[in-house]
Amino acid sequence: MEEIISYHHLREFTHEVFIHMGCSVEHAALASEVLVSADLRGIDSHGVARLSGYVRLWEAGRINAKPDIRIVHETPSTAVVDGDAGLGLVVAPFAMQVAIEKAAVAGTGWVSVKNSNHFGIAGYHAMKALDRDMIGMAMTNASPLVAPTFSKERMLGTNPIAVAIPAKEQPPFVADFATTTAANGKLEILQRKNEDAPYGWIQDKDGHPSTNPHELKNGGALLPLGGDREHGSHKGYCLGAIVDIFSAVLSGANYGPWAPPFVSFLPLAPDPVGEGLGHFFGAMRVDAFRPADEFKAHMDTWISRFRSATPVEGKQVLIPGDPEREMQQHRLDNGVPVLAPVVKDLKEVAAKFNLNF
Amino acid sequence: MEEIISYHHLREFTHEVFIHMGCSVEHAALASEVLVSADLRGIDSHGVARLSGYVRLWEAGRINAKPDIRIVHETPSTAVVDGDAGLGLVVAPFAMQVAIEKAAVAGTGWVSVKNSNHFGIAGYHAMKALDRDMIGMAMTNASPLVAPTFSKERMLGTNPIAVAIPAKEQPPFVADFATTTAANGKLEILQRKNEDAPYGWIQDKDGHPSTNPHELKNGGALLPLGGDREHGSHKGYCLGAIVDIFSAVLSGANYGPWAPPFVSFLPLAPDPVGEGLGHFFGAMRVDAFRPADEFKAHMDTWISRFRSATPVEGKQVLIPGDPEREMQQHRLDNGVPVLAPVVKDLKEVAAKFNLNF
Repeated sequence: MEEIISYHHLREFTHEVFIHMGCSVEHAALASEVLVSADLRGIDSHGVARLSGYVRLWEAGRINAKPDIRIVHETPSTAVVDGDAGLGLVVAPFAMQVAIEKAAVAGTGWVSVKNSNHFGIAGYHAMKALDRDMIGMAMTNASPLVAPTFSKERMLGTNPIAVAIPAKEQPPFVADFATTTAANGKLEILQRKNEDAPYGWIQDKDGHPSTNPHELKNGGALLPLGGDREHGSHKGYCLGAIVDIFSAVLSGANYGPWAPPFVSFLPLAPDPVGEGLGHFFGAMRVDAFRPADEFKAHMDTWISRFRSATPVEGKQVLIPGDPEREMQQHRLDNGVPVLAPVVKDLKEVAAKFNLNF
Repeated sequence: MEEIISYHHLREFTHEVFIHMGCSVEHAALASEVLVSADLRGIDSHGVARLSGYVRLWEAGRINAKPDIRIVHETPSTAVVDGDAGLGLVVAPFAMQVAIEKAAVAGTGWVSVKNSNHFGIAGYHAMKALDRDMIGMAMTNASPLVAPTFSKERMLGTNPIAVAIPAKEQPPFVADFATTTAANGKLEILQRKNEDAPYGWIQDKDGHPSTNPHELKNGGALLPLGGDREHGSHKGYCLGAIVDIFSAVLSGANYGPWAPPFVSFLPLAPDPVGEGLGHFFGAMRVDAFRPADEFKAHMDTWISRFRSATPVEGKQVLIPGDPEREMQQHRLDNGVPVLAPVVKDLKEVAAKFNLNF
C-alpha cells in the first residue's frame, strides 16, 4: 500500500515540477524544501500529497508562478506583505524573513500577509527564527471546514499555529498544531480505512455529533479544539478566529467563509472581502527580553523538567517537537513512505510535464 | 445561598481593604477596579472571592503593598518589567501600559513580567488596548494544577490567554480563556454542589480519567484543553506551555512546577528558578498593518457574518466577549450575586481591618 522513496528524490522531483510550472530556480528550490519538509516531519497530508493540488490551482490560474512579492506597508516592528497570488511556499519564507529582520532591529517583527496560498507546514516557517536566537511564530487561515460552537455552517479553516523556541543543549521547543480537535489529515486516514472517528472530531450537517469520517462530504464540519461546548470548543473557536483575524483581517486577505478553497474544483467566493489567503508571522529576539544565553539555559531546565515529569504508566511526557524531530531523522536515513494513491498522483503530475517519477 | 451586592459597594469595600494593606490610593483604586471587573463580567472565581486570598498572601509577606514597579530591560518594541512582588492587579496595568506606549511608537509592544502575583482576569488587561485602536493581548502563568498529556504530575497552571480586537460599529471581539478543558472556577461550582464533572476535565493521581470534582485534593490534576490525546490534549498542553514560557522564561519568573501557589498555606518551591509569577502582554496598533478605519470596518463584517452563521437548532453562534459584555451590563444595573461563603469570607476580611461589609 506504500512505497519508500528517498527524501532527495522527492525534493528533486518536486523541484522539477515547480520549474515546469514556470517558477524561478530560486523559488522552485525553496518551495520544494518547504513542501517536502512536511513529509520529513511526518505531516504527510501537507507534503507531496498536495503537489497535484498546487499544480491544478496553477492550471486554474489561481497561482502565479512568477509573483512580485513585496512589502506594501511597514513600521519599525510590522509589515504587510502582498504575495501577488504566488505559491504560499515562497511567499511565507519571504514574509518570515521580513519578521526576522524587523526583530533584529526593533526587538520583534510581525508580518501579516495577503494574496497568498497554502504555505505548507506552519512549523517550517516558525523554526526559521531559531538559529537567530529568536522565538518564531507562524499561522495561516485556510479553506472553511470548521463549524464554530453552535454553528451548522463551516466558517473557519483548521487554522494552525506554530511556535518555535530555542534552547541551549536541548533541542528546540516546536509546537505546530491545527486549532481543531483533529487535523484534516487524520480524518483522511480514517476515510481511507473506512473506520469511525472518535466523537468530538466532526459533526453532521445538522450540527449533531457524528463518527462518520465521510461526514464532510455530506455537509458536516470539523470541530474546534475542545469538540463540544462542555469540553471547551468555544476556546478552540476563539483560537481559530484569532488566527483568521491576524492572518486575513490585518492584512487584507479573505477571512472566515470567504477564505479560498485549496481544491481547484470548488469555486472562489463570488463576493471576496480581500485578496487570496492570509498568513501571520512573528519573530521575537530573546535578548530583547534577557541575555540569550540565560534564556536558553532556562529553556534547557524547562525542557528537561517537563520531559522527566512522572508519566502515566507505560507512557512518557513529550516536549512539543520531539516526535517530528525523530521522524525527520528516521526518514532522512530510511526514506519516506508514500501511499499508493499519492504515488499514482505524482506519476500523473510527472506525465503532465513529461518528467520521470 | 447568595446575596445581591451593588458593584459600587464591592468596589469601595475592596478599595478600603487594599488601603488597609498599605497600598497607595492610586494603587488601591486600580487594584479594586481590576479585581471587581471579574465579578462584573461573570468570572466569579477571579473577583472578590479571591480578596481574602490576597490578604493572606500579604500577611504571609508574599505581596508587597508598596512595590517599586519598573522596567529592567527594553528595546524599541519590548520590555521586561520587575513587579517587585506587588499585587498583580497593579503590576499588570503598568506593564500593559508599557506595551501600549511601545506600540504607539514601534507599531507593536511586548512586555514580559517577573516578580508578580495573580493579576485578576486576563481580559481586563487585553481590553485596555481597544480605545487606542490596538489589538491587546494578556497571558499569565499560575499555580501548577494541570498535568501535561501523559503526565501524572501537575506541571502547569490554567495559564489563560486573552486577545481583544477593536471593531467599528460592532462591540469588540474579546477572547479570554484558560488553556484547560474547564477553568478551575467551574470545578469549584461542582465541588460545592457535589456533582460529577464530565470526563475530560480531570484525572486522578494515577493519570486515569475521573469525574470526581474533589480529585485535585487527592493528587489529581486538571487536564489541558482537548482532555485526552485522542481529542487533542497535546494542543492544550502546547498552549499552556507557550503561556508559561512567554510569561516566565522570557522575564525571569518561576515557570512550570516552580510557579508560586496562590494560597498562602502552600509553601513556595525551595529551589526557585526565578522571581514570583510571570505575565506577558502585547499591543499591536492596527494601523501598523492597514488604515484603522478599514480594519475596523472589516471586523464589523467579520463579526456580523459569524454572528449570523446558521446555528444548530435552538442555539446561537456567539462572538467572543458577547456573554461577558451582557453580564457586565446586567450586573451594573442589578448588582452582583455573591455566594454565602464568599460573603462570610468578606465579613471576616472586614473584621480583620475594622471595616464594615
